[in-house]
Amino acid sequence: MSFAFEVTQTDPTGARRGKFSTPHGAFETPAFMPVGTAATVKGLTHDALEQLGARIILANTYHLYLRPGHELIRKLGGLHKFMSWPGAILTDSGGFQVFSLSDLRKITDDGVRFRSHLDGSEHLLTPEKAAEIQLALGSDIAMVLDECIETPAPRDIAESAVRRTSMWARRARAHFLQKSQEAGAAATGSGLPQWQFAIVQGATFADLRRDSARQLLDLDFPGNAIGGLAVGEPHAMTCEMTGVVTELLPKDRPRYLMGVGRPEQIADYVALGIDMMDCVLPTRAARHACIYTSEGRVLIKNARYAEDQRPLDPACTCAVCKRYTRAYLRHLFHAGEITAAILATHHNVHFYLDIMRQIREAIGFGNLAKFSSAMHARYSAGPA
Amino acid sequence: MSFAFEVTQTDPTGARRGKFSTPHGAFETPAFMPVGTAATVKGLTHDALEQLGARIILANTYHLYLRPGHELIRKLGGLHKFMSWPGAILTDSGGFQVFSLSDLRKITDDGVRFRSHLDGSEHLLTPEKAAEIQLALGSDIAMVLDECIETPAPRDIAESAVRRTSMWARRARAHFLQKSQEAGAAATGSGLPQWQFAIVQGATFADLRRDSARQLLDLDFPGNAIGGLAVGEPHAMTCEMTGVVTELLPKDRPRYLMGVGRPEQIADYVALGIDMMDCVLPTRAARHACIYTSEGRVLIKNARYAEDQRPLDPACTCAVCKRYTRAYLRHLFHAGEITAAILATHHNVHFYLDIMRQIREAIGFGNLAKFSSAMHARYSAGPA
Repeated sequence: MSFAFEVTQTDPTGARRGKFSTPHGAFETPAFMPVGTAATVKGLTHDALEQLGARIILANTYHLYLRPGHELIRKLGGLHKFMSWPGAILTDSGGFQVFSLSDLRKITDDGVRFRSHLDGSEHLLTPEKAAEIQLALGSDIAMVLDECIETPAPRDIAESAVRRTSMWARRARAHFLQKSQEAGAAATGSGLPQWQFAIVQGATFADLRRDSARQLLDLDFPGNAIGGLAVGEPHAMTCEMTGVVTELLPKDRPRYLMGVGRPEQIADYVALGIDMMDCVLPTRAARHACIYTSEGRVLIKNARYAEDQRPLDPACTCAVCKRYTRAYLRHLFHAGEITAAILATHHNVHFYLDIMRQIREAIGFGNLAKFSSAMHARYSAGPA
Repeated sequence: MSFAFEVTQTDPTGARRGKFSTPHGAFETPAFMPVGTAATVKGLTHDALEQLGARIILANTYHLYLRPGHELIRKLGGLHKFMSWPGAILTDSGGFQVFSLSDLRKITDDGVRFRSHLDGSEHLLTPEKAAEIQLALGSDIAMVLDECIETPAPRDIAESAVRRTSMWARRARAHFLQKSQEAGAAATGSGLPQWQFAIVQGATFADLRRDSARQLLDLDFPGNAIGGLAVGEPHAMTCEMTGVVTELLPKDRPRYLMGVGRPEQIADYVALGIDMMDCVLPTRAARHACIYTSEGRVLIKNARYAEDQRPLDPACTCAVCKRYTRAYLRHLFHAGEITAAILATHHNVHFYLDIMRQIREAIGFGNLAKFSSAMHARYSAGPA
């Protein structure tokens, strides 16, 4: 199978339902990608991920570059083979982690110099290097290196980041096309080995967002992402900026909003024309005993659940809700058991993937707006 | 189903193959019981445990008494319902953990006074209390409180522990029979709600071991355990003491050697007439990256496995060996991923349960001795 994206249905809100095909299988959009930072979704086996219906996951280039190293992964046949995951994989560029995790970073037009958070070793990440690492990993979708800035950002900083992001995208695209035509296309027989996505920046300035989008569209990427949002600004602002950008993006190519979101916000992004999302929230919250349910968040360590014999979410059909009670999960968390994280993660990822199924169905019926208001109402009301 | 134990086949070594029926299903013997200290086998979901073929697990009374509390578990319908485990459960008496985990313990003929390792609260565990807690938990097999002593023990200390263990067993038996006839038998309709096992002590003194066994046999327990072994003495001594005791134990009742053992030692215990065993080794070793394989131990964090694309154990049929490579497992351990513990635990528990299947089969063919020498040879040779 080779790469393809098609929008099959639309909704009055502007939401799109579609299908994204990759050499590692197809997935339906809008899609949520569970985060598998170091080549594993923390706490889930691949068997569990498949049982949950995940067809695409995200892995972090920064982490895999530092450990075990992209050259090792290339040598062992690429990331899919290394981790034994037959489905699709999207890798980020490593940029966001360099900006958030590493020490002593120094940004120039050349790239970003940083020290590993693991051993202090010094590295230089350039647009070309980020593309090369991802080609070595062999992910299905690769992201260009962008400049991530802190929020709220002054206008001049945001302008500079847009300029550099466009320049880096141009270099990344050129390098990727050259390298993949040399190596990857030969390996796969036809077409490119990866789809490379651009990332629109521009902080919270609508005109900068538009400038960034237009500059990147000239480079003709097969897909476009929106970065630098959901990093502290109000949800309304995230939506405004997302809408400003999706208005400009080509309708026949996938749009990926990076690093979102809360359960009740997802439908809002989809209504703005977003096709793909990723977030550590379901997995990270699970490890901290925060359970997402159809009735809102359940903080399962709370004393009120000590004798609660209901499942985590009475409306849920996942394997955890079928078998275990809130009282038992609460006990496992208090006892500090690994099994607590396993079960909570399983449920939360199911919850997110199930939201996506419901959203796709709602788009099919043209009533996403109704679904969205119901979610907001349930989440503002809190747990029963 | 009610309680029953029958020996169906024997082997020239003295090994027995049999079937143990409980109100929560039957299991074949010799059986290895994975340890689920706090009502979970660390790192394994119950679905995984069932997939692995576990039909009986062990839970620790000390831990469950302190957290979440046996009264809570009783209120929620007993341990099976609380943890959603339909198979058989054996609970220990709590004694061993009091002696190994708690502070400020003080032993008298009455019982043992100790401080919780969790919050420093003071508790008194008596033979009656240990029986009551286990009745509240509703395990299928309950153990009497015994006096556990440090090893090597001087003869006078061992003598005193044997005396107290017998006295406590008498009290525990009387209390259990009274309480279970009052409550449990009524609940199950017929027979006793639990089988209560005695524990033979006597350190490394053959005559004390025999005295202890004879005194306990007078109390007519439906099953007998051997405690205080595999606590530092040489394997040959463990075997000698086990043999001294099993010679005296009734042939038609189950024998349980507590807290053993290493993979290559299990067949030795079975050859001495042992029917049941438990040990944290497969699960604890897994979390410390020690993998048991048909070729010996594999310390998977070792650099030699960095590019090793073989499964953990090429001869293994478990779900982990079918899917993942040594290189990937090594990476997960180095990255500190929960998934490393999940996968390694799954494999190690499979390995132990598979040894038991092979041992039962070998008894059926009357060639356990051959199986045992092969295991010793493989484990002394080390990993390939």
